[in-house]
Amino acid sequence: MTAFFEDLEIGQIFTSAPHAVTTEEITHFARLYDPQDFHTSASTAENTIFGGLIASGWMTAGITMRLMLEAVPKISGGIVGRGIEQLQWPQAVRPGDTLKAEVEILELRPSNSDSARGIARIRTITRNQKGETVQHMESVIFLPRRDQ
Amino acid sequence: MTAFFEDLEIGQIFTSAPHAVTTEEITHFARLYDPQDFHTSASTAENTIFGGLIASGWMTAGITMRLMLEAVPKISGGIVGRGIEQLQWPQAVRPGDTLKAEVEILELRPSNSDSARGIARIRTITRNQKGETVQHMESVIFLPRRDQ
Repeated sequence: MTAFFEDLEIGQIFTSAPHAVTTEEITHFARLYDPQDFHTSASTAENTIFGGLIASGWMTAGITMRLMLEAVPKISGGIVGRGIEQLQWPQAVRPGDTLKAEVEILELRPSNSDSARGIARIRTITRNQKGETVQHMESVIFLPRRDQ
Repeated sequence: MTAFFEDLEIGQIFTSAPHAVTTEEITHFARLYDPQDFHTSASTAENTIFGGLIASGWMTAGITMRLMLEAVPKISGGIVGRGIEQLQWPQAVRPGDTLKAEVEILELRPSNSDSARGIARIRTITRNQKGETVQHMESVIFLPRRDQ
């Protein structure tokens, strides 16, 4: 069973399962994509302004993507993004944090240029175990419409 | 030698070295963070709307982060983001593509609330070997100021 544009409603909220962040995940990601002192190892992170290891924001974005895929109904054809309108990391993610994502449907409209698809604007908030927001994102995705 | 707010100028452009994207990098990232059919393997990708394997946009964002770190002067204290204002992936990234990032300083201003830092608005364009834009990003970062 896969979902189409017509299966979603404005105001719907989907909440993901938790994901526990480890030192190994943070340093593995950092070596590949964001090799800065506060991301690459506990020892190099000690003398930075964060006073210890924190995750790259791009890793938090990746974790959020996976949590989102697990939380929302499986979209027919997959989740194809049109763009990100806002992306902020108000709070650092540290080893041992447990993250959950909450996806809210803000807007739904048929595409003007393509009758086979719809467009959804969604807000995805990622929170740690204390309920603090570690990522705030607003994005626009394409959704297939059911055959009319 | 590390750079401070005072070392940058509006209009400066920094261009990175190239990075060659492989099937292995795409599928490794997808398994960890974006396990959708068009990202996880060449065979599952075949019957999707992309007709073959493409990279997760979040992987392109990660590659861009690393290319950016290599291209710009090393910022004292590291690159600390305040937020992303725009992030789009206009063109899919496929195995064999070679990506380069170009970072332009759009705005520079002292922080109103903290005399020890400045704020830069930057545009980072990531292009493939044909010159097509695969990622367009505008973001705001904090920069330390030299002691006055």
